[in-house]
Amino acid sequence: MSGTLYGLGLGPGDPELLTLKALRLLRRAPVVAYPAPDDGASFARAIVARWLVPSQQELVIRVPMEVARFPAQAVYDRAAQSIAGHLDAGRDVAALCQGDPFFYGSFMYLFGRLADRHAVEIVPGVSSLAACAAAASWPLAARNDVVTVIPATLDEAELMRRLDGVDAAAIIKLGRHFAKLRDLLERLGLTAQARYVEHASLASQRVLPLDAVEAREVPYFSMILLHRRGAAWR
Amino acid sequence: MSGTLYGLGLGPGDPELLTLKALRLLRRAPVVAYPAPDDGASFARAIVARWLVPSQQELVIRVPMEVARFPAQAVYDRAAQSIAGHLDAGRDVAALCQGDPFFYGSFMYLFGRLADRHAVEIVPGVSSLAACAAAASWPLAARNDVVTVIPATLDEAELMRRLDGVDAAAIIKLGRHFAKLRDLLERLGLTAQARYVEHASLASQRVLPLDAVEAREVPYFSMILLHRRGAAWR
Repeated sequence: MSGTLYGLGLGPGDPELLTLKALRLLRRAPVVAYPAPDDGASFARAIVARWLVPSQQELVIRVPMEVARFPAQAVYDRAAQSIAGHLDAGRDVAALCQGDPFFYGSFMYLFGRLADRHAVEIVPGVSSLAACAAAASWPLAARNDVVTVIPATLDEAELMRRLDGVDAAAIIKLGRHFAKLRDLLERLGLTAQARYVEHASLASQRVLPLDAVEAREVPYFSMILLHRRGAAWR
Repeated sequence: MSGTLYGLGLGPGDPELLTLKALRLLRRAPVVAYPAPDDGASFARAIVARWLVPSQQELVIRVPMEVARFPAQAVYDRAAQSIAGHLDAGRDVAALCQGDPFFYGSFMYLFGRLADRHAVEIVPGVSSLAACAAAASWPLAARNDVVTVIPATLDEAELMRRLDGVDAAAIIKLGRHFAKLRDLLERLGLTAQARYVEHASLASQRVLPLDAVEAREVPYFSMILLHRRGAAWR
């Protein structure tokens, strides 16, 4: 009897935004795997720390910070091998995924290595998109709106092309790219139709107009929400 | 003391995809409001039926089917008035929202009428997008992917314009528009890179290649997921 790999979406950070299903599967998994920086605590683990039990084996996937966005293949090769060992021995593995596992998550790198030969089940989670819209009290989409999710890591020409003519957009992975995005939106005349959100659902959550943001302090877990209609959702 | 209106995201349909927060707020709300068709049961209510208690007052918002997508303003005017009455009397109201309240939800129509003068809190939920990607075992987005969410209700020229050059897309609100979309994707050479998903997370869930879909039977709650890379997410 082989084990199953569960990709558990944990939501944006507030532990109460875990689903009942993720909690049930987390509690009964003999092995819990999660990413962590080279040197420091895992955010995914922190979300569910209150529910972990001492009998659970923890498998920490240390992802070097400087390649966090295009992670070292070797790190995931090794992690997938460890997980495969547990699955082959009949032990289920719960992989902790902040947000939703299939929405820009690093779980993809484990999935790509293991789904061919092992049972994998994905438990969808509340995405950062939904959490940021809730935090900003700003409806993301209605009726015939087209919603575009755009990584701030794209180059300027591509960003301009993608932003031109959007109805509603979420610009993700801001971090050090914030100033570039603020300039682009200013040039497109969209500043007043945009809101900045960081750490949605956490105690440190902030929602700001773009001109109130200190560009050097923008974390990776932040987002610009944008709608042509602005706040006129009626 | 005025009451608070909670917009509770219930997720895509599986009751286990409710969040802990939505469940807590649902259980303690003296008034529960939800949409229902003219003549029939409410899907949102069905998701949480097991947790409702007899002491809760239920406020059914009957939305005429033929105007479901551009709902009769009068229906929401009346519902907002009833809800405002409860809030003014100090009673919290839990508004049940399938999926996420701010992602194409009819909750928008209540929010637009009540948020100016009443306390409103949004509890984000698992969206149909995340549920469909999980059902299809198909990662939605990774790295620098741009994700576009496109309502099938747009006209053909607009759909072609929006689909041209997408990385990843979710085409929602399919229903009677399915055949039109299948033709468009065929012309764009994207058929093999697409999957059809209906009733994600429910027992009736189905995932199919486009050519296996019976166009006349496509429900409104279905979606086409599309990725230029196809299933090659590695």
